[in-house]
Amino acid sequence: MALIVHKYGGTSMGSTERIKNVAARVAKWHDAGHQVVVVPSAMSGETNRLIGLAKEIMGQPDPRELDMICATGEQVSVGLLAMALLAIGKDAVSYAGWQVAIKTDSSFTKARIQSIDDKKVRADLDAGKVVIITGFQGVDEDGNISTLGRGGSDTSAVAIAAALKADECLIYTDVDGVYTTDPRVVSEARRLKTVTFEEMLEMASLGSKVLQSRSVEFAGNYRVPTRVLSSLTDPLLPLQEEANSGTLISFEEDKNMEQAVISGIAFNRDEAKITILGVPDKPGVAFHILGPVAEANIEVDMIIQNQSVDGKTDFTFTVSRGEYQKAMGVLDGVKADIGAASVMGDAKVSKVSVVGVGMRSHVGVASRMFRTLSEEGINILMISTSEIKISVLIDEKYMELAVRALHKAFDLEKE
Amino acid sequence: MALIVHKYGGTSMGSTERIKNVAARVAKWHDAGHQVVVVPSAMSGETNRLIGLAKEIMGQPDPRELDMICATGEQVSVGLLAMALLAIGKDAVSYAGWQVAIKTDSSFTKARIQSIDDKKVRADLDAGKVVIITGFQGVDEDGNISTLGRGGSDTSAVAIAAALKADECLIYTDVDGVYTTDPRVVSEARRLKTVTFEEMLEMASLGSKVLQSRSVEFAGNYRVPTRVLSSLTDPLLPLQEEANSGTLISFEEDKNMEQAVISGIAFNRDEAKITILGVPDKPGVAFHILGPVAEANIEVDMIIQNQSVDGKTDFTFTVSRGEYQKAMGVLDGVKADIGAASVMGDAKVSKVSVVGVGMRSHVGVASRMFRTLSEEGINILMISTSEIKISVLIDEKYMELAVRALHKAFDLEKE
Repeated sequence: MALIVHKYGGTSMGSTERIKNVAARVAKWHDAGHQVVVVPSAMSGETNRLIGLAKEIMGQPDPRELDMICATGEQVSVGLLAMALLAIGKDAVSYAGWQVAIKTDSSFTKARIQSIDDKKVRADLDAGKVVIITGFQGVDEDGNISTLGRGGSDTSAVAIAAALKADECLIYTDVDGVYTTDPRVVSEARRLKTVTFEEMLEMASLGSKVLQSRSVEFAGNYRVPTRVLSSLTDPLLPLQEEANSGTLISFEEDKNMEQAVISGIAFNRDEAKITILGVPDKPGVAFHILGPVAEANIEVDMIIQNQSVDGKTDFTFTVSRGEYQKAMGVLDGVKADIGAASVMGDAKVSKVSVVGVGMRSHVGVASRMFRTLSEEGINILMISTSEIKISVLIDEKYMELAVRALHKAFDLEKE
Repeated sequence: MALIVHKYGGTSMGSTERIKNVAARVAKWHDAGHQVVVVPSAMSGETNRLIGLAKEIMGQPDPRELDMICATGEQVSVGLLAMALLAIGKDAVSYAGWQVAIKTDSSFTKARIQSIDDKKVRADLDAGKVVIITGFQGVDEDGNISTLGRGGSDTSAVAIAAALKADECLIYTDVDGVYTTDPRVVSEARRLKTVTFEEMLEMASLGSKVLQSRSVEFAGNYRVPTRVLSSLTDPLLPLQEEANSGTLISFEEDKNMEQAVISGIAFNRDEAKITILGVPDKPGVAFHILGPVAEANIEVDMIIQNQSVDGKTDFTFTVSRGEYQKAMGVLDGVKADIGAASVMGDAKVSKVSVVGVGMRSHVGVASRMFRTLSEEGINILMISTSEIKISVLIDEKYMELAVRALHKAFDLEKE
C-alpha cells in the first residue's frame, strides 16, 4: 500500500463527464489498496471567467479580494469530484485549503506555502476515504484566503505530497510526459522516461509548459518523487501500465541509465531584447537601469554588460515580449538620468536552450551547439549558461530551424 | 451615526454593472456617517448553475459537498462588491461565513445559525471599513461549510443585524415593500408602510415571497427592526427618502396607526388536498397517516380530522402541489396498514388567507370573509385559523376572484 497524490488540471476537470472519468481513475488506484489524495484545478475557463468579472469592476483588482473570488473555482471542483466518487460508492471528502489548513504568507495572488497540517487528511485516509483538496490556494495567519498564482495547483499537489511524505505525486495533464523538445516543432521528439529534478527545473523556467517552476522547486527541495503523465488515457487502463507511464522526475542521477549528454531542448518564442547604448561605466549602473524595470514588475531574463570602451559600455537584457513596450517606456524615463546615449530594442527574438545534467561530465556541448547553429547560418545574439544548460537568443524566424538542428545534432531522437 | 445592515438579492447583484450600483448605494449610507455591513446573495442564476453541475454528477447530491459548492456563489459576490467599493475609494473588506465566524449546526443544505462572532466585524467597522459578509452560509463546529437553504441570505442578514445589535436591517429587493396583496392579482393593492412582525411571519409562511419565513422569525425573536425596500431606485436617491421607503416590520403594535382590521391577503396557488376516507377512529391514527408522509420529507400544511361516525372518520390534509404525487404514493402504501377505505386527492386547489393583528380586537372577520366568498359563489373546502389569520382552501379557478373580492371587502385599497 502506498500513499499517492494525484493532481488533475483544468482540462481534465473541464466538464462533469470528465470529472466522472477522473473519479473512475482515482477509484482504480484506491481499489488497488492505495491511499489517495487528489488535488484538482478549477474547471477550465473558470479562473479566467472570475478574473474577467473582477476586471470589469476594478481595472487592477485588489489582490486580497481577487483571491477571495478566484479561490472559488477550485472549491467547486473538489466538491464535484467528491460527489463523483461518492456516486460510484467511494467514500470521499473535500477540503478547501483553509480547512486542511494549508498556511501561506499574505502575498495575495502569489502566496507561498509555509506549512501544511496533515492531521485531518491522515485521519481521513486511515478511515479509508479519498481526500480531495483544493489546489492553488491556502490561508494566511489572519484567516484571509490566499492563492499561489496561475499554475499553483501543481505546487499545491507537490507540497501536499511532501507534507504527507507521499510515495509519489502524479501530475495528470494533457501531455503524456516530458519530451526532448516540443513534438509540434520536431516530429522526432521523444518522451523521456526519467528526467532529473535539475533538468526539469531548467526546462520549466525555460518555457516548457509541462510543470510550473515553483512546483519543480518544491519537488526538488522536499525530494518528492513526481511523475508527469497523461489524463487522456482510458481511466480503466491497467494500473501497472499507468503507474509506469509518463515521465518520472528523479533525484538519482547515477541511476539515470539514459546517459545522454543533454536531455532536451527548451525554447521560448516570445522574447524581446533591449540594449542601452553608451552608458557611462561606473558603479551602480546596472542597478540604475534594472531597478526601475523591477519596480514596474517586469521580469528580466538574460543580462549582458559589454566590456567598457572609453568609459562607456552597452547594457543588454531580455524581457518577455508582452512586457516589451512597458519596459521601453520605463527606460525612456531613465535614459537621461543615467546619461545613456540611446535605447534600442528588438521584439522579434527567441530563446533556445539545451539542457542536461550530462553537461557536467561532457565537454564540448557548447561548441557542438554553436557549430550546429553556425552551420545553419543562424546568428547568436546573446548567450547565457548555467551548470546544466546553455541558452542562446536568436532571430525568431530561425527558432524552429535551430530546435530541429540541435535535436538532431545531439541525437535526441535516439533512445 | 447608526449601524445599518444592507442585504441585496441575486437580481441586485446580477451583473458587474448592478454590483457597481449596489456599491454606490452603500457608499451613500457610509458617506452619511453610518457604519454599514452588507450581506449580498450570489449573482442571479449562479446557485442554480452550481446545483445543476452537482446534479449532473449525482442525482441526489451529497449535502456536505453540495454546500461546499453552493457556498462559492456568495463568496464571489462579496469579493466583487468589496472591489466595487474599493474602486470608488471606500475602504471595504469581504468575509466568507467561516471567516467571521458564523457558526451553524451540521444540517447541510438547511443549517441553522447558532452563533455569530462580532469581534472582527466590529474592529473593521470602527476602522471605518464597509464590511461585506457572504449570506446563506456558515461553518459547523468541525469546520465544514454549511448553507442555510434557498433564501437563506435574508436570514443571514437579519442574524448578523441581531448579533451586531444593528439599528436597522434593510432588505433591498426587486419589490418596493410589502403589499396588501400581490399587485399582479389586484391592481388596487397598496404598499403597507408598516407591518407587524407577526403579520409578516404569517404572510411569509402563507406564500408571500417578499421575505423568507426563517428570516422573519429571526427578526421577531431578536427584535431586529427590518425594512423591505426597493433596490431598483436610483442609488443616489436622497438618503432620507430611501430610509423611509418600503415597509418597516415593526414590533410596536400600538404605534401601528393604520389600525386596519386586516393588513393583507396572502395566497398560494400551488396546493393539493388529500383525503383518507373511512379510517378507523382510534388513538394514533393521525400519526400513522402523517408519520410516513413526514419520513418522505413532505411538508404538510392544513390538517382536518372529521367528527367520527360509527367509529370511522375522514382525514384530510394539504401538501404543496409539487409533492402531491409523492404523497399519494406514500399513502397507497399505508392505506391497508391503517384499514382505510380509500384515498382521494385534488391537486387543483389554492389557499387564500386574510392576515391582520386587528383580528384580535375585532370580531366578525371570519364571518365577513365567509360571506364575501359565498356572495361570489365560491365553495370553501377547508378552513384553518390562527390568532391573526384565517386561511381557506378553494378551487384554484376561483383564486384570483377570491383575492380581489376579499381585498375590496376589507377596504384594503384605502389608506
